[in-house]
Amino acid sequence: MEYFTLQWTDAGALRMLDQRFLPAQVVYREYRDYRTVAQAIREMVVRGAPAIGAAAAYGLALAAAAGADMEDAARVLCAARPTAVNLFWAVERVMKVARALPTADPQAVFAAVRAEAHEIAEEDVRTNRVIGQNALPLVPDKAVFIHHCNTGSLATVGYGTALGVIRAAHEAGKDVFVYVDETRPRLQGARLTAWELKQMGIPHALIVDGASGYVMQRRGVDLAVVGCDRVAANGDTANKIGTFNLALAARSHGVPFYVVGPTSTIDLNTPDGAAIEIEERAADEVTQIGAELIAPEGTPVVNPAFDVTPAEWISAVITEQGVARAPYAESLARMVALAGAQRIVDE
Amino acid sequence: MEYFTLQWTDAGALRMLDQRFLPAQVVYREYRDYRTVAQAIREMVVRGAPAIGAAAAYGLALAAAAGADMEDAARVLCAARPTAVNLFWAVERVMKVARALPTADPQAVFAAVRAEAHEIAEEDVRTNRVIGQNALPLVPDKAVFIHHCNTGSLATVGYGTALGVIRAAHEAGKDVFVYVDETRPRLQGARLTAWELKQMGIPHALIVDGASGYVMQRRGVDLAVVGCDRVAANGDTANKIGTFNLALAARSHGVPFYVVGPTSTIDLNTPDGAAIEIEERAADEVTQIGAELIAPEGTPVVNPAFDVTPAEWISAVITEQGVARAPYAESLARMVALAGAQRIVDE
Repeated sequence: MEYFTLQWTDAGALRMLDQRFLPAQVVYREYRDYRTVAQAIREMVVRGAPAIGAAAAYGLALAAAAGADMEDAARVLCAARPTAVNLFWAVERVMKVARALPTADPQAVFAAVRAEAHEIAEEDVRTNRVIGQNALPLVPDKAVFIHHCNTGSLATVGYGTALGVIRAAHEAGKDVFVYVDETRPRLQGARLTAWELKQMGIPHALIVDGASGYVMQRRGVDLAVVGCDRVAANGDTANKIGTFNLALAARSHGVPFYVVGPTSTIDLNTPDGAAIEIEERAADEVTQIGAELIAPEGTPVVNPAFDVTPAEWISAVITEQGVARAPYAESLARMVALAGAQRIVDE
Repeated sequence: MEYFTLQWTDAGALRMLDQRFLPAQVVYREYRDYRTVAQAIREMVVRGAPAIGAAAAYGLALAAAAGADMEDAARVLCAARPTAVNLFWAVERVMKVARALPTADPQAVFAAVRAEAHEIAEEDVRTNRVIGQNALPLVPDKAVFIHHCNTGSLATVGYGTALGVIRAAHEAGKDVFVYVDETRPRLQGARLTAWELKQMGIPHALIVDGASGYVMQRRGVDLAVVGCDRVAANGDTANKIGTFNLALAARSHGVPFYVVGPTSTIDLNTPDGAAIEIEERAADEVTQIGAELIAPEGTPVVNPAFDVTPAEWISAVITEQGVARAPYAESLARMVALAGAQRIVDE
């Protein structure tokens, strides 16, 4: 089945797959107002750091088309999710283009903003393919992966980051098997990753998050791959809640633990994990699954959306510029510099 | 609210709280046939190692009342769950009594078997209260716990094991707070432990299993307490899936990790964790929550009911005979010997 995360339509709207209804239903929605795009990001119609960045970029295109105040639109979009740095990165990149043009010419602003959004979207897919290629030497010919959350086509504009690594290995003819952890509370592993792997025909088995230690201990796992919402300058990495626990299990079993993402996820302005604000989300994400109430009414809940895995537990950060290893302060700065140089050459 | 896990009725039936409907409904069921008791154990109407043991003991009383073949009944009951050693322990204890009597006198067999089942049930509650007292010196006056699965009144005949430790600390006037992990796939933490803590008025917050590392890293946890389904002679401990991951998180944060259970859970005939058979359960425990299908239809699943935490990750095993610490081969054997001596004195 062909599917896409988001697409700009000929009629000038942003069409997005409503991921809250997967795997039961494939529903696309059209957005014509940047405020409803911000709402869609907040409510996780679209999720995954790279996909959120692209959605926000197109949100700015909608704002430009409507002649809205661009700075207002940028603020509203950035406020939708506080942790993912790609969101701020994409908004800032588009705003740089917008600010360079006279506001008196809204048509020109719209054309330039839309073009930059397109470029971000296309670049994301290209970047992910390169990441997959860069990872290939790290993947054994017969490889049992463990994977957290969703980092596939659905988390990006296309191809995927950590799931892109799995896909690239599969496409390169390696014999791949994936343990998919379900990723509570929102179950992106069960709902989205299992669904994407099924579309791609890659063998897999679903496990609960608490079974990661068990499968490493009793069944054997060759490598763990996860995405990232923000990589600090020292390598500390914010990613979906449960990532840190998976890293602990991997380390104690000698399983390499790879963080996978574009260099746009590396934030050199964030010195370390302690400086990363962790979004806490609503209690009912934990206490309610569909129509099912799974805890007593009014149960107090602590529901962090992300956790921070300290750099020391990460074997490498795999980017489109190459594989960064400890000491990360140097290697990550080099990746970001390479990406900057690349962009200058592209222009 | 007053509630109980299981009770022998004046009319000679076994009444059990159907835990599958908590917290939404409090439903009691009556059993008059040992085969339906075995089914109830298999389907987790009743769960928790000590509660299963007592339920099986009463199942044998029902078998004796019906004049059934006692050896057959013992086999059927033992086959209901393969991992919990209390089940085999309780059945063996009752069968010793039954075998000592002439099968020609079914009334006498029934009376003796029922008396032994009563004794197991009453002993369980007494034992748990003593465990709670034994644990008190390990609990700070202001204590933040993290707790896995359900180990409360509902997992036992009464009072609880690991949750009994929390309860004893609360009753002793300590300032107690509990992070309750939900415990996928069957959500005993969310459904049962949060419900029991609410009945007892003990402050708590529910988290997803993957957030245990996060709360230790960012919020602070003083000690982790878990139950056990089988403790091997070397201290390796089988318990609800996810226990091992919690132990890894505890170790990496310097949080003491305590296994709590009666000495009947210690199995000196099992040399180590590798010798423990791990029950794998049905896929739909993972893919379906109530009416909600949370993964694509037909998704392959690996669903172990338990995992094994190696002894090296366990700070102590808290029993009714005292607190066992490494080296466990010695300390656990001493606890079992003490319990045997105790039983001889009791008789």
